[in-house]
Amino acid sequence: MKFGVVIFPSKKLQDVANSYRKRYDPHYALISPHLTIKEVFEASEEELKDVTSALALAAKETNPFDLTIRKVSSFSPVNNVVYLKVEPTDELQHLYDRVHSGMLDQEVPYSFVPHITIGQKLSDDEHLDMYSQLQLVDVSHEEKVDRFHLLYQLENGTWTVYETFHLGGK
Amino acid sequence: MKFGVVIFPSKKLQDVANSYRKRYDPHYALISPHLTIKEVFEASEEELKDVTSALALAAKETNPFDLTIRKVSSFSPVNNVVYLKVEPTDELQHLYDRVHSGMLDQEVPYSFVPHITIGQKLSDDEHLDMYSQLQLVDVSHEEKVDRFHLLYQLENGTWTVYETFHLGGK
Repeated sequence: MKFGVVIFPSKKLQDVANSYRKRYDPHYALISPHLTIKEVFEASEEELKDVTSALALAAKETNPFDLTIRKVSSFSPVNNVVYLKVEPTDELQHLYDRVHSGMLDQEVPYSFVPHITIGQKLSDDEHLDMYSQLQLVDVSHEEKVDRFHLLYQLENGTWTVYETFHLGGK
Repeated sequence: MKFGVVIFPSKKLQDVANSYRKRYDPHYALISPHLTIKEVFEASEEELKDVTSALALAAKETNPFDLTIRKVSSFSPVNNVVYLKVEPTDELQHLYDRVHSGMLDQEVPYSFVPHITIGQKLSDDEHLDMYSQLQLVDVSHEEKVDRFHLLYQLENGTWTVYETFHLGGK
């Protein structure tokens, strides 16, 4: 089975993100707006118990933190992906490191740039449109993160939550 | 905010349910296949803490149980809803009662018929088609349930998981 680990931001921020995703993100119907902290990985039913134990420990040993957004950014020209840039924090980096070490070790092609995708698989024109439009919008936002989720993917591409993990072990 | 409480069955059963939902259920893109144990209810951010405490206690005091499906059924003529009928168990009824008592008390128009919807908002013809077709299919299935989830609804109608609760307090 395919798994992934994400933070779902507050309803408020998800609603904002969806207002753009509806038009610009073909993954709109597959998963709620999220900050990915561990990209898709394979695990068997048998491995699942060890995976959840490792994630529970990572959660316990990471403090809740502030998620701050100040601007919209883009991975262009590498990828025509537009996103809400999440300001890096020590806790977020720590969490990322923890869910990529030990039994959770994973080859990742990119370095960690915390973000919430609001547009992807855009043509160059669509990308330019969306990105230039969004430069004029104030997307400043701040909220507390106290949890993350382990998800698995169904055959139709949608994601279902398997479990919630609370930061700081609460 | 609008909340609901559901059990997500295994990936295997969700994939089966989605193979029908894709065609017959307009809620296909809004939520993964599920067994509703508490219909949509309103709660404020302030009430959320008490709601989660009450759900945690209900989870702790309910044992994991077997989810057994033997047949496809329908709420017609009241509603053109086709579903995988989940065999009632004491634990499931106990869980249902617990999430409808105390601070979780809620007016509900129907009695509890455990089910996983695979078709709804069907015309009479569609309903007849789907239902008669499915009488020929063996949908027998059994699995263990050890958790349920509290979800909230976004403005676009989709549902995001807020928290997982483990039965038996594990």
